[in-house]
Amino acid sequence: MSANKTALVVSAHAADFVWRCGGAIAHHAALGYDVTVVCLSFGERGESAKLWKQEGMTLDKVRAARWSEAENAAKALGVHELISMDLGDYPLRLSDEDKFRLVDIIRAVQPAFILSHSKYDPYNTDHMYSTEVVLETRMIAQAWGHKPGEKVLGSPQVYLFEPHQTEQMGWKPDVFLDITDVWDKKRAAIECMEGQEHLWEYYTRVAQNRANHFQRNSGGQSGGRPAKYAEGFQSVFPRTVDEL
Amino acid sequence: MSANKTALVVSAHAADFVWRCGGAIAHHAALGYDVTVVCLSFGERGESAKLWKQEGMTLDKVRAARWSEAENAAKALGVHELISMDLGDYPLRLSDEDKFRLVDIIRAVQPAFILSHSKYDPYNTDHMYSTEVVLETRMIAQAWGHKPGEKVLGSPQVYLFEPHQTEQMGWKPDVFLDITDVWDKKRAAIECMEGQEHLWEYYTRVAQNRANHFQRNSGGQSGGRPAKYAEGFQSVFPRTVDEL
Amino acid sequence: MSANKTALVVSAHAADFVWRCGGAIAHHAALGYDVTVVCLSFGERGESAKLWKQEGMTLDKVRAARWSEAENAAKALGVHELISMDLGDYPLRLSDEDKFRLVDIIRAVQPAFILSHSKYDPYNTDHMYSTEVVLETRMIAQAWGHKPGEKVLGSPQVYLFEPHQTEQMGWKPDVFLDITDVWDKKRAAIECMEGQEHLWEYYTRVAQNRANHFQRNSGGQSGGRPAKYAEGFQSVFPRTVDEL
Amino acid sequence: MSANKTALVVSAHAADFVWRCGGAIAHHAALGYDVTVVCLSFGERGESAKLWKQEGMTLDKVRAARWSEAENAAKALGVHELISMDLGDYPLRLSDEDKFRLVDIIRAVQPAFILSHSKYDPYNTDHMYSTEVVLETRMIAQAWGHKPGEKVLGSPQVYLFEPHQTEQMGWKPDVFLDITDVWDKKRAAIECMEGQEHLWEYYTRVAQNRANHFQRNSGGQSGGRPAKYAEGFQSVFPRTVDEL
Amino acid sequence: MSANKTALVVSAHAADFVWRCGGAIAHHAALGYDVTVVCLSFGERGESAKLWKQEGMTLDKVRAARWSEAENAAKALGVHELISMDLGDYPLRLSDEDKFRLVDIIRAVQPAFILSHSKYDPYNTDHMYSTEVVLETRMIAQAWGHKPGEKVLGSPQVYLFEPHQTEQMGWKPDVFLDITDVWDKKRAAIECMEGQEHLWEYYTRVAQNRANHFQRNSGGQSGGRPAKYAEGFQSVFPRTVDEL
Amino acid sequence: MSANKTALVVSAHAADFVWRCGGAIAHHAALGYDVTVVCLSFGERGESAKLWKQEGMTLDKVRAARWSEAENAAKALGVHELISMDLGDYPLRLSDEDKFRLVDIIRAVQPAFILSHSKYDPYNTDHMYSTEVVLETRMIAQAWGHKPGEKVLGSPQVYLFEPHQTEQMGWKPDVFLDITDVWDKKRAAIECMEGQEHLWEYYTRVAQNRANHFQRNSGGQSGGRPAKYAEGFQSVFPRTVDEL
Repeated sequence: MSANKTALVVSAHAADFVWRCGGAIAHHAALGYDVTVVCLSFGERGESAKLWKQEGMTLDKVRAARWSEAENAAKALGVHELISMDLGDYPLRLSDEDKFRLVDIIRAVQPAFILSHSKYDPYNTDHMYSTEVVLETRMIAQAWGHKPGEKVLGSPQVYLFEPHQTEQMGWKPDVFLDITDVWDKKRAAIECMEGQEHLWEYYTRVAQNRANHFQRNSGGQSGGRPAKYAEGFQSVFPRTVDEL
Repeated sequence: MSANKTALVVSAHAADFVWRCGGAIAHHAALGYDVTVVCLSFGERGESAKLWKQEGMTLDKVRAARWSEAENAAKALGVHELISMDLGDYPLRLSDEDKFRLVDIIRAVQPAFILSHSKYDPYNTDHMYSTEVVLETRMIAQAWGHKPGEKVLGSPQVYLFEPHQTEQMGWKPDVFLDITDVWDKKRAAIECMEGQEHLWEYYTRVAQNRANHFQRNSGGQSGGRPAKYAEGFQSVFPRTVDEL
Repeated sequence: MSANKTALVVSAHAADFVWRCGGAIAHHAALGYDVTVVCLSFGERGESAKLWKQEGMTLDKVRAARWSEAENAAKALGVHELISMDLGDYPLRLSDEDKFRLVDIIRAVQPAFILSHSKYDPYNTDHMYSTEVVLETRMIAQAWGHKPGEKVLGSPQVYLFEPHQTEQMGWKPDVFLDITDVWDKKRAAIECMEGQEHLWEYYTRVAQNRANHFQRNSGGQSGGRPAKYAEGFQSVFPRTVDEL
Repeated sequence: MSANKTALVVSAHAADFVWRCGGAIAHHAALGYDVTVVCLSFGERGESAKLWKQEGMTLDKVRAARWSEAENAAKALGVHELISMDLGDYPLRLSDEDKFRLVDIIRAVQPAFILSHSKYDPYNTDHMYSTEVVLETRMIAQAWGHKPGEKVLGSPQVYLFEPHQTEQMGWKPDVFLDITDVWDKKRAAIECMEGQEHLWEYYTRVAQNRANHFQRNSGGQSGGRPAKYAEGFQSVFPRTVDEL
Repeated sequence: MSANKTALVVSAHAADFVWRCGGAIAHHAALGYDVTVVCLSFGERGESAKLWKQEGMTLDKVRAARWSEAENAAKALGVHELISMDLGDYPLRLSDEDKFRLVDIIRAVQPAFILSHSKYDPYNTDHMYSTEVVLETRMIAQAWGHKPGEKVLGSPQVYLFEPHQTEQMGWKPDVFLDITDVWDKKRAAIECMEGQEHLWEYYTRVAQNRANHFQRNSGGQSGGRPAKYAEGFQSVFPRTVDEL
Repeated sequence: MSANKTALVVSAHAADFVWRCGGAIAHHAALGYDVTVVCLSFGERGESAKLWKQEGMTLDKVRAARWSEAENAAKALGVHELISMDLGDYPLRLSDEDKFRLVDIIRAVQPAFILSHSKYDPYNTDHMYSTEVVLETRMIAQAWGHKPGEKVLGSPQVYLFEPHQTEQMGWKPDVFLDITDVWDKKRAAIECMEGQEHLWEYYTRVAQNRANHFQRNSGGQSGGRPAKYAEGFQSVFPRTVDEL
């Protein structure tokens, strides 16, 4: 277990962590967190259309290409450890053994918070399935009778990062994070996603518009902070505080 | 305007602020906040049954008794200023002039956050009406064209404090505040409410059970803080942060 | 106050009580309840299209025609008292004085339960407004300080009767009442609504299909009661029981 | 009444119609619709911060400036008629007389559809109030007994246009309109809003990202139309069709 | 793949497609669509009570009887192809292989739209499970890496057809289809369901009452189309249009 | 099958039935019901932290200890039959064979009503999974083609008992049961749970506060029954009645 503070990202497909919380990763890495990213799959079947349209493409080539992109992006963001569980996509499936492997990772990381997908996604059932798995494995990691003697998990917050077409997913952000200071890193990571160039500008615009929301909610026209780039997250659990 | 940090409580009836956020008031007062409490009414018609059952009771006597209780409770909690708007209850009504008076108070206080009632309450329409008024007056206080030249309001969070029968109100707390350190003050304030003695133990139990929720959400059986008393709140707006 | 058990119906327009809860009225009248029906308006402007299409029609003629229908229907159903508040429709408006008159009626009736409209209705804002008024006046009727000395109201259930296009209103019935025994009375009352003949068969079909739901929920293919006509209602408040 | 097809926009403040449905206005104008825009207020108190920060500003100057902007924008979009109801903002209020004026407009226009604000907006209660008024006045316009002899309104769809911070408003678009062909007009109208320059790029990005959603929902990576700019809307009522 | 426009119905049990969207099938067949119906099971265990009450009944006999009914109904409706996946019911289960078979069908049909069950159904978990499967297989059918080289699926709308007891399922129709022209075919198909005669009149009444909703939403008392029979559907995804 | 009225409790872990519906069990036992309790697991891994903290603890010892507690509690409550399905916890899993065993139990008991967990629980996915299983097995038990010849199940209500942190689970009670008469039995059963002593007072306070809700909803300050202990439940299905 790390001496630093830690965080864990659970990404259904290899690229999800970049678009959806790359800023949070880079920002917390800069704050001294060790951020571990788990990719449940490469997104090799369902999220690699551009590669599949090339002549002579094979599943192995797609997998290698997507993983290379993910590694480059992780490096750009300052990810502490990038873990591939290689479980396949469209559909993604975890057996109980797979889930116990994820529990091992959760316990090893002991994250201060976990980042994953929205609760609902009719376009992409892998996404909502990942969040179900996160809640289930978080519970198992808390069980004193699971691998007795290991350090059990506390109660880390689970933040749901921004899905595509937020309103269709019923996703509602309750916290905005200023990522202006690490935007160059997120943009660099985004540009590692060579197969999805059509999304580079899309997610740059998302970050710019979320910065407007950051400003509005931090004071608006009377004192709000003029962030240039931000990310939004939805909390699953209540917070505990000493000051409102 | 205060040099200290400030907070504002908008209470439909004179006793509401005690049961629902007395701990938050005392705790923030102890932190150095100037906490202003606005009572929109005395609760003289609808929340003073015990008094009305006495022989020879009059509206003036009820009002005086309820206000005396509120003043004593405010003193026990360390309220900076207790303001009576005396608008009547069951039903509570605010004209635009009344709302502008409330806007004046909001601007004078410039609160870091506002506390008020749940959004929905089929048992007590005064409660949900108060929250509608809070949102409307918060908006007016932000308008640069309302009494131009005055300092406009920023974007303070609005926290909805705990209603009676939470589930019937659709109220869901997303933040728990540890009030163990000021519990004796909240209990003292509660005991000022002589007409509602049947609620003293009820709200003591609420605070104890919310402390269990505080512990669960701050780490559970593996590191949660063993608070003895807590209060829960529901946020209306998203937060803006520099660390998740 | 009646020596019998009592119930109260609050109907936005003169005909609403017939289509939406005529069976409940007749059934409870047969059980010995005194059922009071309050019509807040005649539906003279918005729910009398057939009359207005006639030559030489005037507001007074429409009002008289609608009230005559309502009286005939009330008689057919065994209504104990039919009260016209004559507040106008499209839009319906109640001043505080109007609401206090309704409070007087509620307190005089001391109903075991109240029937009114769905909480939401984007087609007909008079309907949802009526339910808001019912909740507000129920609260005032419970206030010991409103006309002190009068008998205050207890906690009668509020049942929301079936709106037109139920799904658009977000209305969900949680109780079905068998009205087979009084169907002939409801049908007779329905046929008093001469201006809305297109709805006679519509609401007969509704009652037949609700009977199917009654059977399904009382035992289905294995013991459900084969009701022929039923009505559905949505409860606002929780019940208190001695047996589940 | 127009011989052309018609549409009606109800805008709480003078600028709302530009950001939120300027594309729909210009696009339908190009299709031959006569589009009428009603501004309930100028947004003079609450949405003119930049003007109020200038020396010597008065309410009259702000009103004139905002209206001039609105007129220029309307011209750029091809609005058929721009109507100022001048009801004041922050808060916006309509008396029954004001509502009847709006009913007169609705009946005169006989719109095929109506565009207005989201149902919920805790930041800006004028917005949700406007939608309540639209539903209420639509109902009155349908009443055969309101100004008998006038042509009553049919059942036009009400589309809720895109609010700021969509997720906080619970707004969910169910229809996307391609506005690529009229984007230059919408951008020109946007640039008429001199007091809100910080929003020009913001709403350009919104239109670009909505175009991505248009493409995804019209066929995605396999045949979706590559729109460049789009707007989203939420329908209040069900549609009636002859082909799914 | 068909040269005609195509549609796909996914029916949990053999009879579901008749009651819930028989009109849509016949209507689109008449419009020139090739409509494929997939029955995931025969409903042999859970929806054949009348057969099971007969002496000497066996599973094979029930299956044969239900399939014969389904074939007759499909013929009456003009179904292009009726496919039995024969996966068993109460409970219905699809392995990944079964799902890939369904993906093959979806890709072969390339439907303009898909019809299936409501999202929620506490009475019948097979129904909601079918819709989960539809969303998952739709996603897989869109994946360029699933059976590379095959024509991938676009973004067909998924319409949820009308469940029994709509309000209990949280089902809300947003589109009504006039099926008056093909009602005789739907009624003929309904009468093929010999084991469920108690539902013939029930679903005839549903169609008649939905016709009333069609009329209301297409113009009401002022120009609505007087449909005699209609069906309602709830859309899962947003539409993309060139005219509102 | 019993000659008495019967009820069934489905408890994910061995202790759940005590905290959440021990009063309902004892109360209905006193009314003459035969109440069967099915424990799907012992809660041996996830809900036995205190035991696992002891030296030399083993899974067998934990299982034995938890079952002993459950048996003692069941005796204290007057449970008719306590059944252990021993399916393991954290995570709980039921194969189809396991589900058919549960169907056998449901059919054997023929319960008038079933008690189980809340529909949603992000803290404990075993809980919500149990409710899914209850709905699925209830459906199978109703199927005439499942083990033809057996007595099929009718339509028993499913009541969701009170979860921990009710608001986080979206649980809303619609019925309160007075358990004052059997409180001593519930408290005795609670005290059998030696490993969870920190919850004894917690759930005593819950019962006391629910009694306040019982009183409020049975008449409030004007005639409500002063219950001392109560339990709340949420109904899944509508009721069928002969009197509102």
